[in-house]
Amino acid sequence: MLADAPEGTRRLDADRERINARLEALFADRVAPAERLDAAMRHGVIGNGKRLRAILVYATGRVLGADPDALDPAALAIELVHAYSLVHDDLPAMDDDDLRRGQPTVHKAFDEASAILAGDALQTLAFEVLAEAAHPRTAALVGTLARAAGRAGMAGGQALDLYAVGHRLDAEALATMHRYKTGALIRAAVRMGGLVAVPEADPRLAALDRYAAAVGLAFQIQDDILDVVGDTGTLGKAAGADAARDKPTYPALLGLDGARARADALRDEALAALAVLGEAGEPLADLARYMIERDY
Amino acid sequence: MLADAPEGTRRLDADRERINARLEALFADRVAPAERLDAAMRHGVIGNGKRLRAILVYATGRVLGADPDALDPAALAIELVHAYSLVHDDLPAMDDDDLRRGQPTVHKAFDEASAILAGDALQTLAFEVLAEAAHPRTAALVGTLARAAGRAGMAGGQALDLYAVGHRLDAEALATMHRYKTGALIRAAVRMGGLVAVPEADPRLAALDRYAAAVGLAFQIQDDILDVVGDTGTLGKAAGADAARDKPTYPALLGLDGARARADALRDEALAALAVLGEAGEPLADLARYMIERDY
Repeated sequence: MLADAPEGTRRLDADRERINARLEALFADRVAPAERLDAAMRHGVIGNGKRLRAILVYATGRVLGADPDALDPAALAIELVHAYSLVHDDLPAMDDDDLRRGQPTVHKAFDEASAILAGDALQTLAFEVLAEAAHPRTAALVGTLARAAGRAGMAGGQALDLYAVGHRLDAEALATMHRYKTGALIRAAVRMGGLVAVPEADPRLAALDRYAAAVGLAFQIQDDILDVVGDTGTLGKAAGADAARDKPTYPALLGLDGARARADALRDEALAALAVLGEAGEPLADLARYMIERDY
Repeated sequence: MLADAPEGTRRLDADRERINARLEALFADRVAPAERLDAAMRHGVIGNGKRLRAILVYATGRVLGADPDALDPAALAIELVHAYSLVHDDLPAMDDDDLRRGQPTVHKAFDEASAILAGDALQTLAFEVLAEAAHPRTAALVGTLARAAGRAGMAGGQALDLYAVGHRLDAEALATMHRYKTGALIRAAVRMGGLVAVPEADPRLAALDRYAAAVGLAFQIQDDILDVVGDTGTLGKAAGADAARDKPTYPALLGLDGARARADALRDEALAALAVLGEAGEPLADLARYMIERDY
C-alpha cells in the first residue's frame, strides 16, 4: 500500500484493526428485540471496509493531541453513518447493488425491509454512541456529523447523484455532487477528530478542513479511476459498474491521465494545507498520499 | 375533542400550531442541493399530523418550568424522527401504504428512492436541530432520542412488527411490540421535555416515565380501536387496514369492549403516576384523557 512509508502503513493497519474491534464490540450482544435486525445491522457494518473515515478521525485527533480512547466514539459514529448510507444506497430503488465489500448486500442477504430498518438503526446508533461518550463538546460533535450527513451534506449529494443518472454533468457539477456525497462526511471525520482534541475556535481546524476537502475529492477521483482500472476481486464490489450505469465519472470527463493529474493536484493542495502543523502533520500527509495510491 | 376541558383543548391546539409553525420555518428555505429532496422531506413532515409527541414535550416541559422557546428543539426533533419513521414505514417493502395524513405517501407523491433519502435526512435533521440548540444537557437529550429511536427502541419495534405479520401474537407479545414501536418515542418525548427543564437525577422524571409508558400504550390501543370504528376521512389513512393485513391488534385479541377497558385502565395508571406533581400535573392529566377520547 505505502511501499515507501512502512510506518504510515503500520499506523493505518493498526487504526483499521482498532475500529474493527470497536465495531465488533458494539454488536457483541444482542440488543434489538428482533434478532434479525441486529444481524442485518451487523452485516451492514462488520467486514473488510476501508475504514478511511475512522482512520481520518484517529489520525487528526492524535495529531492535535487527543487520547485514542477519546476518539473511539467519533470514529465509530462516522463509520456507522457511512455504513448506513451504503446499505441504503445499495437498495433496489437506489443503486440496486448485489455485492459490497465482497459480500452480498444487506437486502440480498436479508430482505429489503430489513435493509431499510438496518440502515435507519445504524444511523441512529451513530448518534447514540456520540451521546453516550458525553464529551464536553457533544453538541459540536453531533452537529458536525448531522450537518455532514444530512440534506445539506451526504444525503443531499445522494439526491444529486440519483437525479443526475442519465444526465450529462460537467467536471464542475461532478465536483459539486462529490463535495456533498462523499466530501462532507470526510470533512466531518477530520473535524470531529479535531474537535475531540481542541475547541471549535482553534485555527488549526480551518487548515485541516482545507486538507479534508482536498483529500475527500482526491479519494473520490481515485474511486472513479479504480472503477475503470481495478478488478472486482480487489475492490470487493463490481468493477466497471459506473460506466455500465452511465454514471458521470472523472475518467469519463477528463480521461484517465487527466483524472490522475487532478488527483495529484488535490494531494498537493492537501499537503500544502498541512504546512501550519509542521512535522506533527506527517501522519496526515501519509494519508493524503495513500488516498490516491491505494488500489482498493 | 375535549368537550369537558376547553382549556386543555385550547392548549393542545396552541401547541399543535406552535410545532407546525416551527416545522414550516425549518423548511422555509431550500437547503438541500437537490430541490426535490427538500420537497420530499417537507411532504413527509408538513401537514395535519396529530403532533402528540411534540405536545407531550411542551406539556411536560412547561409542567416542570421550562420556557417554551427552550422546548422547541426537542419538540421538533421528536416530530422529525416520528415523520422519518412514517415515511419509511409506508414504503412498498414495508407497509406499502398509499395514504398518510390525508395525502399521498412520499414514495407515491415522489418516488421510492426519494422517500428513502427523505426519511434518512429527516432523521439526521432531528439530531442537527438538537445539536444546534446547544442545551447544557445536549448529550442526555441526544442519547434519549437515539436510544428511543434505535434498535432497542422504535426501529426494534418496527422489526418486531415486520416479522410478526401473519403470526399469532398474544396480548403480552403485542404489548412488547408496541412498547418498542410507539411507546419508546412517546416516553422519549416526555423525558426530553423534562430534561430541558431539570437534570437527569430529578425524581419527577421517573414518575413521568411511568406516566409516559401508560399513555403510550393507551395511545396505541386507541389507534387500534380507531382502525376498527373510525372512518378513513377522519383518520387521514385507510380505516380497516390492520384487519385487512391480518396485523395483530387489541380489538382482535380482547374484543372492542376489552380493548376499551384496557385503555381506561392505562389512563388511570397514567393519572396515578402524576400524583407526585399535584395540581401542576393537570395539563398532563388532560392529555392522558385525550389520548383515549380522540377520534382521529
